[in-house]
Amino acid sequence: MSETPDSAVRTYIENHRAAFLDDLVEWLRIPSVSAQPEHATDVRRSADWLAAKLRETGFPVAEVWETPGAPAVFAEWPSEDPDAPTVLVYGHHDVQPAAREDGWHSEPFEPVIRGNRLHARGAADDKGQVFFHTLGVRAHLATTGRSTPAVHLKMIVEGEEESGSPHFRALVEEHAERLAADAVVVSDTGMWSEDTPTVCTGMRGLAECEIRLYGPDQDIHSGSFGGAVPNPAIEIARLVAALHDEHARVAIPGFYDGIVELTDRERELFAELPFDEERWLRTARSTAAHGEAGHTTLERVWARPTAEVNGIGGGYQGAGSKTIIPSLAMVKLSFRLVAGQDPDHIAKAVTAWAAERVPAGIRHEITFSGATRPCLTPLDHPALRSLVRAMGRAFQQPIRYTREGGSGPAADLQEVLDAPVLFLGISVPSDGWHAPDEKVELDLLLKGVETSAYLWSELAAGSHEAH
Amino acid sequence: MSETPDSAVRTYIENHRAAFLDDLVEWLRIPSVSAQPEHATDVRRSADWLAAKLRETGFPVAEVWETPGAPAVFAEWPSEDPDAPTVLVYGHHDVQPAAREDGWHSEPFEPVIRGNRLHARGAADDKGQVFFHTLGVRAHLATTGRSTPAVHLKMIVEGEEESGSPHFRALVEEHAERLAADAVVVSDTGMWSEDTPTVCTGMRGLAECEIRLYGPDQDIHSGSFGGAVPNPAIEIARLVAALHDEHARVAIPGFYDGIVELTDRERELFAELPFDEERWLRTARSTAAHGEAGHTTLERVWARPTAEVNGIGGGYQGAGSKTIIPSLAMVKLSFRLVAGQDPDHIAKAVTAWAAERVPAGIRHEITFSGATRPCLTPLDHPALRSLVRAMGRAFQQPIRYTREGGSGPAADLQEVLDAPVLFLGISVPSDGWHAPDEKVELDLLLKGVETSAYLWSELAAGSHEAH
Repeated sequence: MSETPDSAVRTYIENHRAAFLDDLVEWLRIPSVSAQPEHATDVRRSADWLAAKLRETGFPVAEVWETPGAPAVFAEWPSEDPDAPTVLVYGHHDVQPAAREDGWHSEPFEPVIRGNRLHARGAADDKGQVFFHTLGVRAHLATTGRSTPAVHLKMIVEGEEESGSPHFRALVEEHAERLAADAVVVSDTGMWSEDTPTVCTGMRGLAECEIRLYGPDQDIHSGSFGGAVPNPAIEIARLVAALHDEHARVAIPGFYDGIVELTDRERELFAELPFDEERWLRTARSTAAHGEAGHTTLERVWARPTAEVNGIGGGYQGAGSKTIIPSLAMVKLSFRLVAGQDPDHIAKAVTAWAAERVPAGIRHEITFSGATRPCLTPLDHPALRSLVRAMGRAFQQPIRYTREGGSGPAADLQEVLDAPVLFLGISVPSDGWHAPDEKVELDLLLKGVETSAYLWSELAAGSHEAH
Repeated sequence: MSETPDSAVRTYIENHRAAFLDDLVEWLRIPSVSAQPEHATDVRRSADWLAAKLRETGFPVAEVWETPGAPAVFAEWPSEDPDAPTVLVYGHHDVQPAAREDGWHSEPFEPVIRGNRLHARGAADDKGQVFFHTLGVRAHLATTGRSTPAVHLKMIVEGEEESGSPHFRALVEEHAERLAADAVVVSDTGMWSEDTPTVCTGMRGLAECEIRLYGPDQDIHSGSFGGAVPNPAIEIARLVAALHDEHARVAIPGFYDGIVELTDRERELFAELPFDEERWLRTARSTAAHGEAGHTTLERVWARPTAEVNGIGGGYQGAGSKTIIPSLAMVKLSFRLVAGQDPDHIAKAVTAWAAERVPAGIRHEITFSGATRPCLTPLDHPALRSLVRAMGRAFQQPIRYTREGGSGPAADLQEVLDAPVLFLGISVPSDGWHAPDEKVELDLLLKGVETSAYLWSELAAGSHEAH
């Protein structure tokens, strides 16, 4: 399958690794924190730096794209083969806030290498994982003797992911033609562990709403009126209690309509992973697992839809007591969605369900925000097979399968561009995303480079296979 | 029954009304706001003023009693008849906070008379209703020709009622011997309306608790972990939803143990009151009644126990959304209790109920505060009959029966002194307790004076009747 012995790729990477790391360190020094207005110029500097570096890498097109918020970077490197498939790489150049006093052992924006680890904010999330593609494509060209990639290669690296990607969907819609691709490679996730390289095949979607219940038009005395008028704090609790049935399944009529159930093969593959529930519970900061009957913990977080309360409030929450029936109570709900579920359909189902349950004397308002579609690439999709082959060559191990329980802007790319999403991430759970001492494992980072070096040929080959 | 024609009492009151009102206005000018530390000296001045006024009225004993908070006033006027029953009058001399800018049409501590109404903070709650006893006992003596009251008369007027009477129970226990009485007359409630004079026969008790549920030991990501660990905000809602059954009865095992049910006669008496549910709903600032099946609204608020949520909270309650499973959720519950219910028993029942319902993976804490016993004086109690006769003579109308849904320090007097509580109040719902433009209706205030003038003879006579 490969046009050149993989050892040539490894040698190329080894020879260029020092310069690659120097460049990455330079980028990591830019505190591109999108959430903090005082870093707005740093976010812009980060975009400019990346665009220049991509041009230097060889991309004939590398542009900074403006948004109403932070800028994104777009780059394009057409293949000389006109029949080559088009592949769009997604990542982000902004980072989470970080300060030494949060518990870092070194300055978060002064990268340091300790042993096999490069510590810096953004080392894994997501600059390191965006950047491995630069050396990856150079290795691809050098070892295949090509002057252009085996695919029409595009990159979109946004600047607001850590702030919830508020303008990304609009950006993708605006530039849909230039971003058009046959497959999207998202390099912003991770693997199971250092020992167990995996490819993620999907992310859950998300629908969020806030429900507000209005009772008395001001707080009233619970002695004078208690027991004789509806209490919105009780009614909000009843609504929440009715979210699930006794099997911990979501009890909203229509919620499961059309969902793509896990296949037996997928359940087997999940079950093959070296999952340690005690260890998982520690990462969940919890002491017991709980969820939908008939499913394992991994199935619950990766492949089953949920209804969760993110916040609930009403009445007096301070010290001591206040004998009132509150006038208002609210709940913030989020629903994680899996393939086959549509956020708009879920919003309609939740709206109808709530309207039916709110009793006389209580007025309700329901407001939906942030809808993200689920994405899932079937195990037998040719592009996914290509990614698994590329990773297998880099890791020289069987590649297993995971999914992500969270939700991300990948779904917008999938939907607007109508392209399958491949998740290529080499980060591991110990990398400390959003936490102090964030790091990336250098050997895994270089496996990312190597995977990227193989991926374009594999995708081109897989594409021909599929035709 | 009466030793003198009632017209003599009315004439006496008419002749002394101007001086009586001048004195009350003087007292109302003292801003004895117990909740505001800057008014601590005013609360003390109010106590000193009242003690002096009670001595001037003729009480041979009138003392200011210290507490760790605001002072109370105790006064005593023994009867020359050694067999006379002992009656203790309860009231309070502190008032709610008030400021012109809250919506008052005049300064809250500059009393003004407009037509039949005396407006000032404390006019009805409670200075006016404490003070009518001063002219009442003078009228009693003047028109019966007695030099001492027909009962051993005591008064206890506390200074922290508007702050929840934090030291009252201890004060009563400390002075139980001096406060000992055969009956307690509480002058801190109201009547049905100006047209429908009533006597209140009981107040509900109160047990309060806060339940805290602890889930993950910090907020965790609802994408990564949602659907697979218990969510304390969902569990707190389930607990609340389990408080009531489908008939809106409290579903905590043992909750109704031993309660004194309404008699058919009491239900008839409640039903005879000119109750307008639409109007009541307006006072409840609500649009629909809701409560225990098989009971009217008045039965629900006066004579049925309740479980209410005064506050609920957990997770993110700000603008927008935050995709977390919160680490903590809490609820503040209050239970109104009726005769036969014991707050300690309720606390045990709630504790056992909660412990049984909290699932694995959730740690819970339950903390009880503020327990007040219910109080109820049977319709056929001789002291209550005496009060009804006294009110009937003053109002020259049939006296009907109410109860109070709230809870008060009367219960402490009932319990510590082991004496029945009589509620003598002439305030009406429009008096605006705790609200701007608080007022008392002058003709009702003088009916209070008149009732007080008859009451001591009626109680002495009733006491002999009962013996």
